[in-house]
Amino acid sequence: KKIYNIAVIRGDGIGPEIVDEAIKVLDSVCAKENFELRYEDYLMGGVAYDFKGTPLPDETIEGCLKSDAVLFGAIGGQKWDTLPREFRPETGLLKLRKSLGLFANLRPTSVFDELLDASTLKPEVLKGVDLFVVRELTGGIYFGEPRANDGFTGYNTMIYTKPEIERIAHVAFESAMKRRKEVCSVDKANVLEVSQLWRDTVNEVAKEYPEVTLTHMYVDNAAMQLVRNPRQFDVILTGNIFGDILSDEASMISGSIGLLPSASIGGKVGLFEPIHGSAPDIAGQGIANPLATILSASMMLRFALGEIKAADRIESAIKKVLQDGYRTKDLANYGAKEVCSTTQMGSIIADYV
Amino acid sequence: KKIYNIAVIRGDGIGPEIVDEAIKVLDSVCAKENFELRYEDYLMGGVAYDFKGTPLPDETIEGCLKSDAVLFGAIGGQKWDTLPREFRPETGLLKLRKSLGLFANLRPTSVFDELLDASTLKPEVLKGVDLFVVRELTGGIYFGEPRANDGFTGYNTMIYTKPEIERIAHVAFESAMKRRKEVCSVDKANVLEVSQLWRDTVNEVAKEYPEVTLTHMYVDNAAMQLVRNPRQFDVILTGNIFGDILSDEASMISGSIGLLPSASIGGKVGLFEPIHGSAPDIAGQGIANPLATILSASMMLRFALGEIKAADRIESAIKKVLQDGYRTKDLANYGAKEVCSTTQMGSIIADYV
Ligand SMILES: CC(C)[C@H](C(=O)O)[C@@H](O)C(=O)O
Ligand SMILES: CC(C)[C@H](C(=O)O)[C@@H](O)C(=O)O
Repeated sequence: KKIYNIAVIRGDGIGPEIVDEAIKVLDSVCAKENFELRYEDYLMGGVAYDFKGTPLPDETIEGCLKSDAVLFGAIGGQKWDTLPREFRPETGLLKLRKSLGLFANLRPTSVFDELLDASTLKPEVLKGVDLFVVRELTGGIYFGEPRANDGFTGYNTMIYTKPEIERIAHVAFESAMKRRKEVCSVDKANVLEVSQLWRDTVNEVAKEYPEVTLTHMYVDNAAMQLVRNPRQFDVILTGNIFGDILSDEASMISGSIGLLPSASIGGKVGLFEPIHGSAPDIAGQGIANPLATILSASMMLRFALGEIKAADRIESAIKKVLQDGYRTKDLANYGAKEVCSTTQMGSIIADYV
Repeated sequence: KKIYNIAVIRGDGIGPEIVDEAIKVLDSVCAKENFELRYEDYLMGGVAYDFKGTPLPDETIEGCLKSDAVLFGAIGGQKWDTLPREFRPETGLLKLRKSLGLFANLRPTSVFDELLDASTLKPEVLKGVDLFVVRELTGGIYFGEPRANDGFTGYNTMIYTKPEIERIAHVAFESAMKRRKEVCSVDKANVLEVSQLWRDTVNEVAKEYPEVTLTHMYVDNAAMQLVRNPRQFDVILTGNIFGDILSDEASMISGSIGLLPSASIGGKVGLFEPIHGSAPDIAGQGIANPLATILSASMMLRFALGEIKAADRIESAIKKVLQDGYRTKDLANYGAKEVCSTTQMGSIIADYV
């Protein structure tokens, strides 16, 4: 029987609640597929600052590095927003991404037929949408130096080198090969030098994938096209900040940001987290939607552990649970036969797998 | 009788066609309101490069500076995309904005009731949307130095100084005072130093406008909220690149990017242009929608020339034309009684004013 070590970071706000449900589902599925998961808890974010004086203790990095995968909830909250930047929850997350070498953030967006009505976009625009954002995660303006703010002048540097662009482009093209074989690279090459390098490099990498159709789109146009006709996209390849913006926008396609998982890969160990935040306003009320985290756990099984059948089981279970009309509060108005709490939702999915 | 001098820049692609219709409407309205407009043509963009070897000839800058306002169509096209950056159409536009000191770009977005169905967003989400993007236009990453691309490393600098932020913030708060008295400032202060300065400075300026409610939103969340619930926004205040992305996204609210005007102000002379581009693929076919340019001409009358009654006339004429079922091809499926060409649309509006 295979044994995997999972580093678990619950984080702040609703983080602990939703991670608990993901673990419930994981435990249920591994009993059936004959492997074992061993969990080890680590601190990150506001809670780490409160207990340890830093948003990312060294033992968290070390713990993640010696595990087979990291399952992560969410971090942040107003309480810590006014701390000096180095102590803020977000700084911990960025540092973890960098320390683990997670240069590729994968954000699939599709629509559950049962929830077609939950989006503010018209059903006829949504039907069949299935897109995959490949966001560069350890470069660009997030990490660029120099950066400063002296109270009079503030600046950051959006920087990419050719090897950084090449490796993320390869991830996008490889992903496209397993999908509809289309990559749309998003940049602002009509204004930015860094985008010109991005575009030229992506064009070069494309030559190694003659079967894939590559197009380029300016980021302003992409933000528009995602609303106008999201079905036109297969794989969207883009940099750190543009990917941050576009993937959050794309999440509205699915009707709720509570539904979308993500995987961050590229280093020795992958990290799996919902794309939504820590939602402190609803923390502790038992109304958070755990689906995005459960789907992230499923991505973990698929991409990090190679437990494909277990991942498939979770995804079919979620589809059935939605078909049967179970909804958390955020989706109560869309086909709910029974509105359930965070823990009830987790238990039902664990039952169904 | 008052006489105003208007610098006219037709530009590339559909630029000439749509500007012609705007002039038709302007001529019709000034006959009725007893003022005169004198037009002088200037070159910018690809056409300027083709004829003069530069996308922004000096005489264009001089001509604009000695006029009362600039009416502009659109620039750009694939043909010029591979030129060295200094010769590209976009470089001409950016240089013109900078030369004229146009630091504030105003982009109103609302929905014509007649076109509620044209958007991919559901009508119930759209009804009553009326938002106003105030985008900083001569700073940020568009103009920041240093910038370079040596084929291995590419970088740009996102930079703002306190005075630059203060003056654009004042424009936003002044705008809000004439509207619903709400400003939402959009940044990425959880990651970027330049955004932290932005946020702190906006907070300071807000103290001078105690009647205005100020909120802050991260740009990824804003991209999401514009799709989730656009009605929540009154004035959106943001920097150059975030404003570029968000205002194009917001244009989808109105159902067509062919409907949205913009004003760029801040210097001695204002510039008025549709937010859409030069659409080379449909140029010369007589199917471009001239409404965005006609609405930009109306903004010119209102903001630059103070001819409020003339501006009101144009806007009511457009409303009536839409009520009566006239549509250009892009909107043919949404309540059209008669589908008309670019020039027909211009003539009908000129008739109605
Ligand atoms: C919390 C924040 C730093 C983070 C980011 O901007 O990357 C988040 O928005 C995300 O997309 O994971
Ligand atoms: C053409 C381009 C340089 C321009 C910009 O990015 O500002 C356009 O997208 C706009 O929004 O006016």
